[in-house]
Amino acid sequence: MKFIERLLGAQKKNDSLVCVGLDSDLAKLPRSILGSAEPQFEFNRRIIDATKNAVCAYKPNMAFYEEAGLKGWAALEKTIIYIKESAPDVVVILDAKRGDIGNTAQAYAKACWALGADCVTLNPYLGIDSLEPFLKDDTKGAFVLCRTSNPSGRELQDLDVTTPGGPSKLYMHVARLAMSWGKGGNLGLVVGATVPSELKDVRALVGGAVPILIPGVGAQGGSLEAAVRNGANESGLLALINSSRDIIFKDPGPDFAKKAGESARELKEAINKFR
Amino acid sequence: MKFIERLLGAQKKNDSLVCVGLDSDLAKLPRSILGSAEPQFEFNRRIIDATKNAVCAYKPNMAFYEEAGLKGWAALEKTIIYIKESAPDVVVILDAKRGDIGNTAQAYAKACWALGADCVTLNPYLGIDSLEPFLKDDTKGAFVLCRTSNPSGRELQDLDVTTPGGPSKLYMHVARLAMSWGKGGNLGLVVGATVPSELKDVRALVGGAVPILIPGVGAQGGSLEAAVRNGANESGLLALINSSRDIIFKDPGPDFAKKAGESARELKEAINKFR
Repeated sequence: MKFIERLLGAQKKNDSLVCVGLDSDLAKLPRSILGSAEPQFEFNRRIIDATKNAVCAYKPNMAFYEEAGLKGWAALEKTIIYIKESAPDVVVILDAKRGDIGNTAQAYAKACWALGADCVTLNPYLGIDSLEPFLKDDTKGAFVLCRTSNPSGRELQDLDVTTPGGPSKLYMHVARLAMSWGKGGNLGLVVGATVPSELKDVRALVGGAVPILIPGVGAQGGSLEAAVRNGANESGLLALINSSRDIIFKDPGPDFAKKAGESARELKEAINKFR
Repeated sequence: MKFIERLLGAQKKNDSLVCVGLDSDLAKLPRSILGSAEPQFEFNRRIIDATKNAVCAYKPNMAFYEEAGLKGWAALEKTIIYIKESAPDVVVILDAKRGDIGNTAQAYAKACWALGADCVTLNPYLGIDSLEPFLKDDTKGAFVLCRTSNPSGRELQDLDVTTPGGPSKLYMHVARLAMSWGKGGNLGLVVGATVPSELKDVRALVGGAVPILIPGVGAQGGSLEAAVRNGANESGLLALINSSRDIIFKDPGPDFAKKAGESARELKEAINKFR
């Protein structure tokens, strides 16, 4: 099945635009889980069990697994296998933000697909030849960083650039380039909820068929209503509203998974009011 | 010792600007090494033994280790430990090209330093808060992508941008920003040998105290003479001329390490003619 069809299927089946960020930083795991032989995997397993009917996607960020070295890499592998077994309709986004030249990008693509991910996040600074290896297989997808949610995202991304089509902000030019790069329909964009008017502009530019991954609600301060209204398409789909810390670390006690499940359902319902 | 002093020490001790890229793609390793229990590490060990007196730096690209999964990660760990033991003056550049938001960048920095690297390559698209966690410790360094060596590097990097200081190419603006970011002297830039006039402009802009990592000679077609003349400072230092495939995969037979050593010495001598 094409990536875009899988994503639409997941959003419709669970009636949800929620993406849970599995940023399972060892240093932040609940004390109750630390006695486990594989605390990162065990934490994720319980979060997945509690949230899987309320989400369309999981997004493990590789940084928090690489930080834990070999054990972290093993936990990431096991987590993705577990999602595929217990929630096969839910999409796995590997938050890798990779970007490298041709033969190296090819190696990163193999690494990401070998881990079992359905799609990845990518950085556009090196241009199309750094992204192409990820786009060859239309059962796999990619989200290219366009306008990020962090405060200094503006430093490069908001620059005024001169293009053959006239003046533009850099992030809008990236959105335009991405549309020419992603001819197979498997290329989406990342735009932060912290920049709602930029999100609106990007959705207007790319039309309704392109998925937009939207981090930055909750801890980072982005408005949920604006993220949904500006990010979803005319059918209320293809926005992925990511929440990490506000779901997985909502409760530091032994009931963390139950609280994560409640938080995911609350977020789903809050989003659905605005769709 | 500060990172910049370590790097200068390595260049002076071996009288070399050569950086060997340990892009040890499993699929390209000599057949003679494949029977080893740890072929990636064993290959690197023999390359290091043969080249360590002719180089100032080794640059393993994480893609080729992540591609091999858990075994690849273990091989990368062992390789860096081996460099530290057998060639302690030589600098280890982890070619990671990471770039992520604050708390995630912090996790990547911990991952890179836990692997034992002296410095990393980073992507500037997310701005300073994605780089800061790597710059806190002045015994560690970072090279920020400025103008990359790949054909589509121009797509974003050569755009004309409007800045408070006037019109500029994006890559020159990145170089200017990097100088304001890297106040501790531990921030260098990556500029490809395939764009020699851009390399000249960047060196002129940043002055002689900033290291520039220069990939793209050899297989990618960049001129060695231009890379050295345009990239080195007035003392013939602080350019790092990277070569990967043309050294490590120079010979596919059982004598690969001997040939790699010869190639590294030849490159060192060829560079030194132009310093």
